[in-house]
Amino acid sequence: MDNRQAIQQSIREQGDKIRKLKAEKAAKTEVDEEVAKLLDLKAQLGDEPTPKTVLKTPKGTRDYSPKQMAIREGVFKVIVDCFKRHGAETIDTPVFELKETLTGKYGEDSKLIYDLQDQGGELLSLRYDLTVPFARYVAMNKIAKIKRYHIAKVYRRDNPAMTRGRYREFYQCDFDIAGQYDPMIPDAECIKIVYEILDNLKLGNFVIKVNHRLILDGLFEVCGVPKDKFRTVCSSVDKLDKTFWEDVRGEMIDDKGLDPISADKIGEYVQLNGNDCEGGHRVLAITLVRFDMSLARGLDYYTGVIYEAVLEGAELVKSNSKSKEQIGVGSVAGGGRYDGLVGMFAAKGKKVPCVGVSIGIERLFSIMEAKMERGNQEVRTVETEVLVASAQPNMLEERLRLCKELWDAGIKAEISYKANPKMLDQYQYAEKAVIPFLAVIGEQELKDGVVTLRDTKTREETPVPRADLVSTIKQKCCSNSI
Amino acid sequence: MDNRQAIQQSIREQGDKIRKLKAEKAAKTEVDEEVAKLLDLKAQLGDEPTPKTVLKTPKGTRDYSPKQMAIREGVFKVIVDCFKRHGAETIDTPVFELKETLTGKYGEDSKLIYDLQDQGGELLSLRYDLTVPFARYVAMNKIAKIKRYHIAKVYRRDNPAMTRGRYREFYQCDFDIAGQYDPMIPDAECIKIVYEILDNLKLGNFVIKVNHRLILDGLFEVCGVPKDKFRTVCSSVDKLDKTFWEDVRGEMIDDKGLDPISADKIGEYVQLNGNDCEGGHRVLAITLVRFDMSLARGLDYYTGVIYEAVLEGAELVKSNSKSKEQIGVGSVAGGGRYDGLVGMFAAKGKKVPCVGVSIGIERLFSIMEAKMERGNQEVRTVETEVLVASAQPNMLEERLRLCKELWDAGIKAEISYKANPKMLDQYQYAEKAVIPFLAVIGEQELKDGVVTLRDTKTREETPVPRADLVSTIKQKCCSNSI
Repeated sequence: MDNRQAIQQSIREQGDKIRKLKAEKAAKTEVDEEVAKLLDLKAQLGDEPTPKTVLKTPKGTRDYSPKQMAIREGVFKVIVDCFKRHGAETIDTPVFELKETLTGKYGEDSKLIYDLQDQGGELLSLRYDLTVPFARYVAMNKIAKIKRYHIAKVYRRDNPAMTRGRYREFYQCDFDIAGQYDPMIPDAECIKIVYEILDNLKLGNFVIKVNHRLILDGLFEVCGVPKDKFRTVCSSVDKLDKTFWEDVRGEMIDDKGLDPISADKIGEYVQLNGNDCEGGHRVLAITLVRFDMSLARGLDYYTGVIYEAVLEGAELVKSNSKSKEQIGVGSVAGGGRYDGLVGMFAAKGKKVPCVGVSIGIERLFSIMEAKMERGNQEVRTVETEVLVASAQPNMLEERLRLCKELWDAGIKAEISYKANPKMLDQYQYAEKAVIPFLAVIGEQELKDGVVTLRDTKTREETPVPRADLVSTIKQKCCSNSI
Repeated sequence: MDNRQAIQQSIREQGDKIRKLKAEKAAKTEVDEEVAKLLDLKAQLGDEPTPKTVLKTPKGTRDYSPKQMAIREGVFKVIVDCFKRHGAETIDTPVFELKETLTGKYGEDSKLIYDLQDQGGELLSLRYDLTVPFARYVAMNKIAKIKRYHIAKVYRRDNPAMTRGRYREFYQCDFDIAGQYDPMIPDAECIKIVYEILDNLKLGNFVIKVNHRLILDGLFEVCGVPKDKFRTVCSSVDKLDKTFWEDVRGEMIDDKGLDPISADKIGEYVQLNGNDCEGGHRVLAITLVRFDMSLARGLDYYTGVIYEAVLEGAELVKSNSKSKEQIGVGSVAGGGRYDGLVGMFAAKGKKVPCVGVSIGIERLFSIMEAKMERGNQEVRTVETEVLVASAQPNMLEERLRLCKELWDAGIKAEISYKANPKMLDQYQYAEKAVIPFLAVIGEQELKDGVVTLRDTKTREETPVPRADLVSTIKQKCCSNSI
């Protein structure tokens, strides 16, 4: 009985935890995870029916509801429009690659790669970003120049923090320019793209931090870092936006064996910079670009300019902070130049210089969703223009026939799936789904060769000759700009 | 040396194989796979430089080039427009699910599920279709009714046949209606949707085969099949579109232990039907629906009406055929009613009836690509409207400035990434990428406050006041309907 009492105690505690989360309006995914734990506990008692399957998505992943999808598609549209405005074409690559394709490209982050089980075939891993597959594509197809965008999911077995938009499965929106060109022209366009997208999304103030890998390397050399530790020290410096200098210093000295004198010298540089030396990118007249020596970017493959865009104002607490210091939501876009990556794949090591940028869309979604929630904004999840309706019995065939006419004319139309639906139910459905018009038919309408067109908002009803119905709806919906 | 000679012999044979494939204009992916094998063999000799990585995508997967993407997006547009026309909203689910979510849903096909490596977390599998995740979503969110579409990649560790559009990673475009409605109304809409999409894609004649799981079950009972063998016999019958009756009969008797008398009775039924009993779906006036008793659908979860659309005319050879019998390209869409699936997930087994359809897009792509190739059709992969150009040196900043004006006005514009590009190169680039206009600036244009607008096709040049450039381009591009 002791064990049973312990479980009952755990159930009570877990119940409290869930109620607290709900009171705090925690993310649904988080609540669901805790509910699953509660159900597990209850199942251990054995006197509750066990659910057949734990109903959850894998850790660090989430479903998108129709409403979230509507928001997501809106954000994607802004991004794709921008990429197309800059003349990019698009490609797609598989979700998994040969494991060896990804090996040796990500430095310390390689441990976060998801591997597939060896089921008697090739050794495969889920893609970690879209940049390495892009470099593989360029090398494999012997492409000398390409400007492409790619929007797709990538996978990282990282510690998820879903309320802050950090997932294990998430979208990247990448724009890259490959080819031998004159210095800094494609680089400037990438920064301009980040600017345009964040400006168009209207999520508040942001700043684009810029640095250069060669400057960082020079800094490390001056500070007395041995050459073979450049990359690993770089990946420590990269953590400065999430943790405090003391921790980064500790990691460099304790874990990576750096001389404390070198570490302190690095500290002087990276802490002095960042806030005061504002400058504009002259040619493209972007005033929000800031040179920042603490910007490092974790990945191994960067060789030149690197950049990162940070939204200001959104609240985020540094992971090991005791006092609740408020800092930015973190990076929402980043990228840089990687001139060596394609050469790692090319049979003769032929290099193709590349520069690119990746938009971190999940954080933008999180902010956008919160904004919609706050503003109590209605998001329409369907585009239906007309509900074909009838109040009389035995009109199913006639409703279907009218609906078919509308579909065939390219009009977005729905009907109730009931054989004899009530008129009130149909009105309510149209109002709830914000369908602008109802096309109502009955015995009288059929006899007169008309359809009663009802405006859902004004409730005004007009008889329209059946032959004119399509053109009337097209005209009305067009003027309503649906 | 014997071993060395054996390898050299293999290299010669492999070389012949590749040359033969190239002569036959085999798919690039197939050739690449064989080239990779050749390089492996050469590496074994040790006197050739080994490429650093085998440059290929995993077996059964492929990259999409910009041209293929343009075709793919065209096909998606037709499909999404149709789904939206029928009032569907969209959702998204993760690429992988808990392994237990997929367990016990696919019958004999379960062996084709891709598992992820157990890396100290949950046991995960790549989704096998979009239907089971949809059922999990409906149960998890306690949804009583929803009409949704979902376009995403699914994964099957099947034997790929890429020239016939059979991949291990491929897209499904699903439309499903969940909810308690009057009989056959949502079912009819699904068939109508298949009809509309195939009709709009204009890929030639097609037929939609329809059957019902309960009729099949009745048939099996009449033929003396024991109840516990219904599903496994069903999955044998499903192979009839790919292999011959004799093989299906053999599988039923030898592998599944069916009484030969029962098998022969089944054979009478499924072979008698299929071609003669044409009928139209009365209400939606689709004349291409055909009742077909040999249609079985492999998956376990169907409970009612099932259907499959087959394109006619496209050549395909049955897998074990000795004489080259010509049959259809195979199923390009399929689906049916599955009233029990959501209940498998719901804690109290609460059922939500569902009916849906899935469009098999890869085969449609293959046919579309072949059609484009044959017709020698140009596919535009970028949407750029204007190339900002100059022949004079030191005009980079001015070009960037003008480009920025166009971008900020929403016009799709590009510039050369060279500091001092040649005019001829810029003309040729515009012609090759089918960019309709060039906006040319030089000292004189700057002094006069104009831009020379050049029509790429007619080569006509007009000076346009700088202030009117945006409106002039918008008007011209609109009238060209770009």
